[in-house]
Amino acid sequence: MKILLIGAAGKLGTAVNAALTARGHEVLAAGRSSGDLRYDIADPAQTSALYDRVGPVDAVASAAGDVPYKPVVDMAPENYEAAFRGKVLSQIELVRQGVSRIAERGSFTLITGVLCRDPIPTSSAAAMANGAVEAFVRAAAIEIAPQRINAISPTVFTESLAKYGDFFPGVPPVDLAQVAQAYVRSIEGAHTGRIYELS
Amino acid sequence: MKILLIGAAGKLGTAVNAALTARGHEVLAAGRSSGDLRYDIADPAQTSALYDRVGPVDAVASAAGDVPYKPVVDMAPENYEAAFRGKVLSQIELVRQGVSRIAERGSFTLITGVLCRDPIPTSSAAAMANGAVEAFVRAAAIEIAPQRINAISPTVFTESLAKYGDFFPGVPPVDLAQVAQAYVRSIEGAHTGRIYELS
Repeated sequence: MKILLIGAAGKLGTAVNAALTARGHEVLAAGRSSGDLRYDIADPAQTSALYDRVGPVDAVASAAGDVPYKPVVDMAPENYEAAFRGKVLSQIELVRQGVSRIAERGSFTLITGVLCRDPIPTSSAAAMANGAVEAFVRAAAIEIAPQRINAISPTVFTESLAKYGDFFPGVPPVDLAQVAQAYVRSIEGAHTGRIYELS
Repeated sequence: MKILLIGAAGKLGTAVNAALTARGHEVLAAGRSSGDLRYDIADPAQTSALYDRVGPVDAVASAAGDVPYKPVVDMAPENYEAAFRGKVLSQIELVRQGVSRIAERGSFTLITGVLCRDPIPTSSAAAMANGAVEAFVRAAAIEIAPQRINAISPTVFTESLAKYGDFFPGVPPVDLAQVAQAYVRSIEGAHTGRIYELS
């Protein structure tokens, strides 16, 4: 398959790219600040330009989402808006604009995360964004069939424990390679409206 | 208790107001377009003005949320933004601004809805908003203790079946009086971070 991968240069995106390439797929690697396809999907106009540039694809996979971390009382309305634009609207626009552009039985695979079910302090904007995307995935799935849409919702990565482990005391981490296989499952499988929880 | 109720003139708000008043509470009824306290909480500045006007309260209850309904492919980015402002940011701001203003052991009770778990066609913005608020509630709960926060997540109201029943084929409705009791449970009980699902 020809697969458009957003956030391809990130820690997760790199693992997903490797897993999809190993399965023989052609990966079109897009990102905000590196690679050939430099587009920031927080801006709906750039999402449109990206789709125009790559032409028809069989699947769209997102490994990109940017949210601020602060205690609720230190947040400003603008911080929640930034989380909405950076992880929710950005991924919704991939779907909304993509429905008319991807293959008739193509798929969308979005990224969320464990914080919407098991929050940590300072994670209210991240949790909000993840919960929004997961509910959107369930709702969009019943409208866009036979196109499919799923979300990948991992806990902290084993490879990120040195940096983030202190925020997840006692929480079993997940290997990036295992998260990447959830993308393979979503893209090559037949499920839709599913949240693949890796935690 | 002295309870600030947002959306007090709506179908749900009216039932909540009656239930809380019957329990002996003093209800301060706020709304966008009726009553003495006319404030639109979709605007964070009006939320601030509302809190300034009412002074200290023991609990804040929301029965207000405005979202657009359209198929995914007919939505515009602005429709999802409107849902975010009208149901997500509006209720988050009630909490964020309220933490420093309500009683030390006071509570927030927000409104979500069944569509984030059991969507219907055209409900992707509503689902997104409900999922966002429910995840926010779980995340905020672990930060604001001993203050508490819960969400009420009802299915279609028995009293709304004539208008909306066709969108919920085979779905058992819930009586408004029963939904109102979930507000009582949230406000007078000791739970926090709970989503009371009435469906």
